[in-house]
Amino acid sequence: MMERNIETFIGCDSSYEEADIALFGAPFDSTTSFRPGARFGSSAIRHESVGLETYSPYQNQDLTDFHTFDCGDLELCFGSAEAALSDIEEKTAEILSDGKLPILVGGEHLVTLGAVRSVAKRYPNLHIIHLDAHADLRDDYLGTKLSHAAVMRRCHEILGDGRIHQFCIRSGERSEFEFAKAHTELYKFDLTGLSALTERLVKDGSPVYFTIDLDCLDPSVLPGTGTPEAGGIGFVQLLDAILSVSKTNIAGADLNELAPMLDASGASTAVACKILRELLLALHSNIKSGEDK
Amino acid sequence: MMERNIETFIGCDSSYEEADIALFGAPFDSTTSFRPGARFGSSAIRHESVGLETYSPYQNQDLTDFHTFDCGDLELCFGSAEAALSDIEEKTAEILSDGKLPILVGGEHLVTLGAVRSVAKRYPNLHIIHLDAHADLRDDYLGTKLSHAAVMRRCHEILGDGRIHQFCIRSGERSEFEFAKAHTELYKFDLTGLSALTERLVKDGSPVYFTIDLDCLDPSVLPGTGTPEAGGIGFVQLLDAILSVSKTNIAGADLNELAPMLDASGASTAVACKILRELLLALHSNIKSGEDK
Amino acid sequence: MMERNIETFIGCDSSYEEADIALFGAPFDSTTSFRPGARFGSSAIRHESVGLETYSPYQNQDLTDFHTFDCGDLELCFGSAEAALSDIEEKTAEILSDGKLPILVGGEHLVTLGAVRSVAKRYPNLHIIHLDAHADLRDDYLGTKLSHAAVMRRCHEILGDGRIHQFCIRSGERSEFEFAKAHTELYKFDLTGLSALTERLVKDGSPVYFTIDLDCLDPSVLPGTGTPEAGGIGFVQLLDAILSVSKTNIAGADLNELAPMLDASGASTAVACKILRELLLALHSNIKSGEDK
Amino acid sequence: MMERNIETFIGCDSSYEEADIALFGAPFDSTTSFRPGARFGSSAIRHESVGLETYSPYQNQDLTDFHTFDCGDLELCFGSAEAALSDIEEKTAEILSDGKLPILVGGEHLVTLGAVRSVAKRYPNLHIIHLDAHADLRDDYLGTKLSHAAVMRRCHEILGDGRIHQFCIRSGERSEFEFAKAHTELYKFDLTGLSALTERLVKDGSPVYFTIDLDCLDPSVLPGTGTPEAGGIGFVQLLDAILSVSKTNIAGADLNELAPMLDASGASTAVACKILRELLLALHSNIKSGEDK
Amino acid sequence: MMERNIETFIGCDSSYEEADIALFGAPFDSTTSFRPGARFGSSAIRHESVGLETYSPYQNQDLTDFHTFDCGDLELCFGSAEAALSDIEEKTAEILSDGKLPILVGGEHLVTLGAVRSVAKRYPNLHIIHLDAHADLRDDYLGTKLSHAAVMRRCHEILGDGRIHQFCIRSGERSEFEFAKAHTELYKFDLTGLSALTERLVKDGSPVYFTIDLDCLDPSVLPGTGTPEAGGIGFVQLLDAILSVSKTNIAGADLNELAPMLDASGASTAVACKILRELLLALHSNIKSGEDK
Amino acid sequence: MMERNIETFIGCDSSYEEADIALFGAPFDSTTSFRPGARFGSSAIRHESVGLETYSPYQNQDLTDFHTFDCGDLELCFGSAEAALSDIEEKTAEILSDGKLPILVGGEHLVTLGAVRSVAKRYPNLHIIHLDAHADLRDDYLGTKLSHAAVMRRCHEILGDGRIHQFCIRSGERSEFEFAKAHTELYKFDLTGLSALTERLVKDGSPVYFTIDLDCLDPSVLPGTGTPEAGGIGFVQLLDAILSVSKTNIAGADLNELAPMLDASGASTAVACKILRELLLALHSNIKSGEDK
Repeated sequence: MMERNIETFIGCDSSYEEADIALFGAPFDSTTSFRPGARFGSSAIRHESVGLETYSPYQNQDLTDFHTFDCGDLELCFGSAEAALSDIEEKTAEILSDGKLPILVGGEHLVTLGAVRSVAKRYPNLHIIHLDAHADLRDDYLGTKLSHAAVMRRCHEILGDGRIHQFCIRSGERSEFEFAKAHTELYKFDLTGLSALTERLVKDGSPVYFTIDLDCLDPSVLPGTGTPEAGGIGFVQLLDAILSVSKTNIAGADLNELAPMLDASGASTAVACKILRELLLALHSNIKSGEDK
Repeated sequence: MMERNIETFIGCDSSYEEADIALFGAPFDSTTSFRPGARFGSSAIRHESVGLETYSPYQNQDLTDFHTFDCGDLELCFGSAEAALSDIEEKTAEILSDGKLPILVGGEHLVTLGAVRSVAKRYPNLHIIHLDAHADLRDDYLGTKLSHAAVMRRCHEILGDGRIHQFCIRSGERSEFEFAKAHTELYKFDLTGLSALTERLVKDGSPVYFTIDLDCLDPSVLPGTGTPEAGGIGFVQLLDAILSVSKTNIAGADLNELAPMLDASGASTAVACKILRELLLALHSNIKSGEDK
Repeated sequence: MMERNIETFIGCDSSYEEADIALFGAPFDSTTSFRPGARFGSSAIRHESVGLETYSPYQNQDLTDFHTFDCGDLELCFGSAEAALSDIEEKTAEILSDGKLPILVGGEHLVTLGAVRSVAKRYPNLHIIHLDAHADLRDDYLGTKLSHAAVMRRCHEILGDGRIHQFCIRSGERSEFEFAKAHTELYKFDLTGLSALTERLVKDGSPVYFTIDLDCLDPSVLPGTGTPEAGGIGFVQLLDAILSVSKTNIAGADLNELAPMLDASGASTAVACKILRELLLALHSNIKSGEDK
Repeated sequence: MMERNIETFIGCDSSYEEADIALFGAPFDSTTSFRPGARFGSSAIRHESVGLETYSPYQNQDLTDFHTFDCGDLELCFGSAEAALSDIEEKTAEILSDGKLPILVGGEHLVTLGAVRSVAKRYPNLHIIHLDAHADLRDDYLGTKLSHAAVMRRCHEILGDGRIHQFCIRSGERSEFEFAKAHTELYKFDLTGLSALTERLVKDGSPVYFTIDLDCLDPSVLPGTGTPEAGGIGFVQLLDAILSVSKTNIAGADLNELAPMLDASGASTAVACKILRELLLALHSNIKSGEDK
Repeated sequence: MMERNIETFIGCDSSYEEADIALFGAPFDSTTSFRPGARFGSSAIRHESVGLETYSPYQNQDLTDFHTFDCGDLELCFGSAEAALSDIEEKTAEILSDGKLPILVGGEHLVTLGAVRSVAKRYPNLHIIHLDAHADLRDDYLGTKLSHAAVMRRCHEILGDGRIHQFCIRSGERSEFEFAKAHTELYKFDLTGLSALTERLVKDGSPVYFTIDLDCLDPSVLPGTGTPEAGGIGFVQLLDAILSVSKTNIAGADLNELAPMLDASGASTAVACKILRELLLALHSNIKSGEDK
Repeated sequence: MMERNIETFIGCDSSYEEADIALFGAPFDSTTSFRPGARFGSSAIRHESVGLETYSPYQNQDLTDFHTFDCGDLELCFGSAEAALSDIEEKTAEILSDGKLPILVGGEHLVTLGAVRSVAKRYPNLHIIHLDAHADLRDDYLGTKLSHAAVMRRCHEILGDGRIHQFCIRSGERSEFEFAKAHTELYKFDLTGLSALTERLVKDGSPVYFTIDLDCLDPSVLPGTGTPEAGGIGFVQLLDAILSVSKTNIAGADLNELAPMLDASGASTAVACKILRELLLALHSNIKSGEDK
């Protein structure tokens, strides 16, 4: 007997019941104002992951030793950001209520808002660790409140002051940096301040949502993104950040803004695949070390 | 004294006052469900038109003999189709009320709806001549009524039965073709029926909105479009259609769905430039022949 | 409960039991001597089929009205053509013995040999209808007998004289054309002779294996193939050929030599998707009309 | 003993002494006003010719049956059109004085002028058969007389009225078409008039220089050229033209304006390779039939 | 009333009168010997600057706080380097005589010579700070003196020994490095020596022409250039150099050798846009701090 | 008299007799399991080397001061790895027996096995220094022993324990790293340990085969490779490694896994060209310094 073709991120073919982590794609980029294409990010990461090993020599861990479920991409409505966000919110809520860790792969950065709505409902004292080239703190973009350029502003409306921690930021309007001074913790250019923060959050056990806009990486490492910004961090630095943040009490995470068609060499997608592998392994290790205690 | 850099479609540097035709771009592709990029269509056509001559050996006419104004691209809101359509509607109305012929360059096909709203307000007995690979007659797309795949259905709600004439259609759901049977005049695959139609419309003087989805062309001629559909018409056939339709009482027109980044050779953009030149020349000739009478 | 991500060619999500047609991919291009990349053909066709409708206005048929199964791609060994062919042969045999029609998507043209071995075992009086730019009749290629350039020669060794019918052929060594004169029925450049042939085969009910090398199409229509050859047929001509051949007693079929990365516009893949849809619909219609009798 | 790496167009590895035809490349595109890249044309054609057969099923001839020499590309000075033209003129003269037929592969169309200077010196009653999308009849381009857009005007200064026969022309300034009316024989859009012309030239035995700007082809067939112009001829039509023109008393020929980097699919280069093969075979056949008489 | 479409580099829409800095493009690459395309550099930088913010978090300055004028691209003659240089020289002279700082965006590096001629006429004691991968010190290139590979040699003829300061140089003929030893100050590979130099020049107030060949950057950061040379500097290092050099008495500056079509990801153009923004802000800050004194 | 077109890597046009080093290409990638294209590596490196200088400012050496022979690419059989390896083995043996140093340019990494077979026959105490992102230590890949992923395992079968020294390794199955612990010297991620090793090998004079898989470089530096792996070394680090390793008793060397079509910017090929130049210069210097003693 033959089965219909199943396609998952490499090493993520657990059933939903067994899984500790549930992965899903949110192929939405309808509010992207410059170069679109992030909608193809999640499926490219899944598709191209066959070029990757399940084993990480960085962490000496193997995805096949853990249980990860990949339910594929949501079918989201282009033309209605609110409808798309509702679908993401609902899927996240379902995964959370089943006691699994939700990992979202974008899509544009606005998709984070859908997930954060659900996670914040369950964990009102939620913190966000945000790696990005852009502050994403505009109040609106040409009149629309639901824009990738405003996503952290919307998250701030949910969580309030002092809960959003931003790193690698090197682009934004002057007013965004001023808003950040008053309401968020923003580190320009690099990861300065991250280890102090994670140490503190590990200690107090606060729930953390971890959102990685892949354009935090330098465009030399990841040119395949809508708005590449020179002056970013390298792969090894991002890997270190992931290992560090994953030790906190992660309640949800996402990876977004890969626009695979913009880098025909495939190198950007390959980098994104490896970052997802490392993120999954780090989160599984943390879950396991929690269970072992 | 130096002037700031002005960039217009080739041969379209008339002032607004003098112009008979006013050109504007609508760089919007927010509801595109498959491959985006039509947002770059209008600016690519303007930018690459320097590779074109102003003279057409097909019509033995030169753009420099006429007055065309190019006000550039509207700044449209990604993330709100309704806001974008309002802006297009308003711009079209302004041009119409100044007694000029509006020509819109998309963007995705949904932008047509903005222009048609304005033109139909002024000409309630408006007909639409629609060249496209796709019927665009869905009632909604994943719940949203304002979708490129539903644009002709929305136009039908404005104009009613028998006013929309569709040609070259070779893709759609079965239900769209059934809708067409009852409510529009739809010709599959090619331009069959077009000359009979234009003859009739020329005779009765009905106002006509002419919308050209560039994917009516075969993908061999224009691969640079979001959803290329094999089996389309050739350049010379489209040129003949333009010459024929331009003899009717044109009240507005558009050209849409060029996605220039999808064809890195630049040939698709070059084809679109030439089609716009021929369309402008044919419309100007018709205006002039009307004035001469 | 959530299901793991299933990905099939559009409209082909039947279970294996119910299906009349079973589709599988053979992502192998190890013997390609010029530009490789056909290995990505089957997965690109599956992946990009979301841009296609299930309904065909050409045949007025819809894939959702039939039962087609898609088991995805075989995992084939690069570096051993014989091992890859054995796997293809075995999979074909399994489908045939379950009473279903096997449709193979390549991969390079050599994969046809695996399928033909199985089909010819079951139907010793098999004919092959072969659409291709290349004769593929070399005895060997740099010493290897299992080469894409020799696949029809290998098929001839199985079936003997007068059983292979070749169309659209416009490239080959002089010796290949001489071999054809003696042993196959070869029509240069176009589809001349095809309707006479299918008429004859329909009449005598001979089993037919139908192999379509997509480079039979003109490179303007399908540039995304390893060895594009100017002077090919158009999409509508190929569609007509498919409708004609599908009326014979088809025992197996394949579509091969799409190299999607070579055409970054995606137009080649879109054409291949549509051809597969039309082939599936035509074969289903024929099966159904056989059952109805 | 090993030889240093020799690279020639496929089937053209005769020694200079034996050869009837001598091929050379002129990788120059310094005056190209729009998109450069024709400088890579000749080396791409040579390099990619390995994907081609030496045998033509169209002519039933094989390059290995003839003697063609390929001396590679000239090293031309970017920044001085006059120096480049002198080098081309000199190389052409050398080949002519050795009793061989010179075939030049461009490069931009200006390179033709270098060859025509030499050929016209030897054959003062020379005619030019010119296939091109562009009239190339400007008097100057931004002040420079040596421009690709003025090359036929320069040739006219050498040869005078009635000697230049232009086909497929579909782009130019109005004044160019007016110049043509008075001084050249210009057919718009297609090959109308060509067979009558060649018949006449065959009869009177006039020496003919045959220059093929590859943009005479439709951009669907050859998108890889600096200024693609919709509405061109197809491959088979060009092939027929080559077979027809080759029956005249050819004194020199060239193929130019392939810009291979503009068509990443490689299809444009493959078409150009095949056209060069067919041109070589047709010219060899004509030389041979002349010798046989 | 509507205005014709104006397109400027982001934040540079001052009128000419008000402006302190006047920007213009020199889209010329006619002497480029390897891969052309720098002609598209200036218009791509202008066009793609919409993806950039006007505010720099590096300098905490905003382009909207200053007055910059962008008059677009000169129309330069391909085929005559001398004519092109004259036009550049004249435009630079006009800007200088109006008391504004000229900033030139290339084009190939030869365009620098046009600007340097004008600036050196006004400031005979001019120094050049030259960031580049290539020494550009050849006496000629295949016989032509006006070549991108000889531009610093031509500048040396104007300015004499000890006035040209070269950094990041990692490619050239042996003889160029020998020439440099005798006549210029050349630092291989990186920015060693730059801060000492700028300190000295700030102190003595010498006028400085600052020319940045973008290939001083590593190809990982900027692959979109004609002759990428591994081993270059990073973005942050170049930014530091700009901040440092901008403190000297700048009399003119340029940015050149972006070939945008060579990097389809757009990342190279985005880097170039940001470098131009930072250069403009640094120069404006310096002008303002001069005025404030 | 004219010569047929000779094409060699820049500065490598010595005759075979005179040469100290003999270069040849092995355009084979038949076992590549992910993205093919390395077959085009050697010819792209040869072809694009015209953009490079023969002089190295890093080593202050010039290729024109040495004698290097380039015999071009072998014609290898796709579809039979064993046949291809035999041809490589034989060519290597011929060069060795003529007292020259063989340098092989791939092609996929499997080609190394052909060269190592020959070199190890002549130098049984051979060591291999292996720079690569991948361990290449699988016992087989889907059943085939001759796979690029197994090449170092095959070399280990020839040389035994302690002879293979691996650097920069950051990808592999867990079992490969375990195999390495027992049988090879493997350094993860970077060049740690290399200088200690070369010092030791210089001292004991052991013959060394030096194999460079270009994917040891970070994908930002060289995206044009089949399986890019984030986290690699930079160009200057690789250059240092080459200078260091070249001081040992080199008996053969190769450079492989450039897939030029995957990086359309050409930067990857340019990097590879420069690495080959530096490798050649370093090896020539070492040969010369040996002779001088």
